[in-house]
Formats: sequence, C-alpha cells, structure tokens
Amino acid sequence: MGKQLKVLFHVNEVEKWDTALGNITNLIKDVGRGEAEIKVVANGPSVAAFSDSSRLEVMSALAAEGAVFLACRNSLKKMCSGVDVCLTEESLPPFIKVVPAGITEIVRSQSEGFAYVKP
Amino acid sequence: MGKQLKVLFHVNEVEKWDTALGNITNLIKDVGRGEAEIKVVANGPSVAAFSDSSRLEVMSALAAEGAVFLACRNSLKKMCSGVDVCLTEESLPPFIKVVPAGITEIVRSQSEGFAYVKP
Amino acid sequence: MGKQLKVLFHVNEVEKWDTALGNITNLIKDVGRGEAEIKVVANGPSVAAFSDSSRLEVMSALAAEGAVFLACRNSLKKMCSGVDVCLTEESLPPFIKVVPAGITEIVRSQSEGFAYVKP
Repeated sequence: MGKQLKVLFHVNEVEKWDTALGNITNLIKDVGRGEAEIKVVANGPSVAAFSDSSRLEVMSALAAEGAVFLACRNSLKKMCSGVDVCLTEESLPPFIKVVPAGITEIVRSQSEGFAYVKP
Repeated sequence: MGKQLKVLFHVNEVEKWDTALGNITNLIKDVGRGEAEIKVVANGPSVAAFSDSSRLEVMSALAAEGAVFLACRNSLKKMCSGVDVCLTEESLPPFIKVVPAGITEIVRSQSEGFAYVKP
Repeated sequence: MGKQLKVLFHVNEVEKWDTALGNITNLIKDVGRGEAEIKVVANGPSVAAFSDSSRLEVMSALAAEGAVFLACRNSLKKMCSGVDVCLTEESLPPFIKVVPAGITEIVRSQSEGFAYVKP
C-alpha cells in the first residue's frame, strides 16, 4: 500500500457541484476507499447546494466513504443577509461541518500537504 | 541553472483550452525549453478538444517542446455514452496519453511536487 | 503564533475579482494582519480591472494590509494589441508590480511553498 493521498476540493459556485461530486466519486473508485483523505470546502454561493436534497444524497453517500464536507460560515451568513434561501448551521445535515472561514481552511490544508483541486 | 519547475495544468472545460495553451506557450517562452516539466491533464468535457484539428496542432507543437498531454479515460468513455462526438483511445494522436482517472493523476502529481494551475 | 501561511490567488477573468477580493478580505480578517503572506497574480483579461477605480480602491486597502498585487506583462501587452483599453505599466498605481510572465510566478511560488487558490 502506497502513501495515502490527501486532497482538498474547492467548490465556490453552485454549478460546479456536479463536476466536483463526479470527480470525488471517480477518485474513490480509482484509488479505493480509504486510500485518499478527501476534504471538500464550499464557500461563496456554492453553499446554497446544501439545501438541495438530490445533491445532499450524493454528498451523504460520499461522506459515508470518508469524504469530509466543510461549509464556510462567512458564506452561510452572507446568504442569509440577502434574498436567497437562508441556511442556518443547525439546519445542515450532521455530516456537513462548519468552518469559520473556508478560505483559511483551503490555505492551511495545502500547508499540511493536501493537494488542491478546483473542479 | 536553477531547480527545474514542475507544473500540472488542469483543463476540464472546452472553453479553457485557449487560455491553457497560451499559458503553456508563455511559460516555455519565459523559462526556456527544458526548464519546466509540464503535464496537462484533461478531464470532463474538455477531452472533446482532442478532435479539434486546430487545437491539436498547437498541442502537438507544445508536446514537441516537452509538454505531456494526458486524457482521462473516464471522461473519454462518458463522451461516448452521450450524443457527443465519441473519441476512441485509438483515434487519439500518439502524443496524447490516456490515464485511467484524470483526477488521480492531478492529486498524485501534486504529492510529487507538481504545482497546480487551473486556467 | 503559528507558522505564517503563504498563499497565491490566481485571477485570470475580470468577473472573478470580486470573489478574489472578498476571499482575501476574509482571510486577513480570520487569521489576523501579518499572519499570511498574500500574493495576487493577475493574468489574461483580468488585468483590465487595474483600470477600474472602485476595484482599485479595495485592492489598495488590501495592499496596505500586506497583500502583493502582481500583473502579468504578457497580458498587459496583449490588451494593448486589441481594441480593449490599453494599460501601460506606467499608468498602474504604485502598489501593483509587473512580472514578466504571470504563469511563471504562479508555478515558482508554489515551488516555494505558497498555497494556490483559484477564486
């Protein structure tokens, strides 16, 4: 068994979720479950997808395979200040964790050896 | 002579090819031929450009300068399952290599010290 | 105090500036001024934003917080060869520095430990 891969997927637009979720599915299929440490950081308007049940279903299945989904608190708050759907942290499914600033998570993870992918 | 640069360009949309090919041209012009190890990983709908003769001409010239072009097998197969042009691996020009999963190549290359650029 | 973070933001489309500037603002707010070394490399059509006074105002404020703004000379020249606004290097505000090729800066910075973010 080789060294475990570490990768962070950065999703900041709603339209990129399908590509991102497809990439993650392909990655797990290719390297095998447990062979890659996968983080998905959602910031900006992309956090709106956390209210979309069909996408949540795919995310939940990937979370069960070990992928970690992280939502940016700044972005959740910004949504609620506008006319968009307002998603409170409490309304998120338990497999989605909230980080204070998605951008810091993205930078810090790379300094800890995570590869970066922008779908 | 400094340490050789290593860089992977990730192209996942057809519309990004011109930017990507321009970036690679500028990089080689700037650092000098042979001073950068360059990989281009195409996944998603971007693989359709491998049937576009005017773009293939530019790619071929860059390949002659040392750039390595890699097509994602998952993405080639997906194209063939739809109404799009179907590109078989055999129909690709010899300078384009096929990898089982583009996404794995992207992650693994970064763990081997390649910089990541998303044009 | 932890290890200082290093990050490069790559902006190659005019429409991405607002996201990029928001990300940088959030990053500085989150980690604290001086805790992150921030470079912003603008190449491609994105350099046109260097003639937009309202965006320049935000950039200038972020530069005062330590962010370094770098414009690609190739891209500035290309603008001037077209029908677009032509921005000479001399016309840029002093806080914007020019690099010969933005793409080289992006690759080299990553080899020096900078994280990469594509807003």
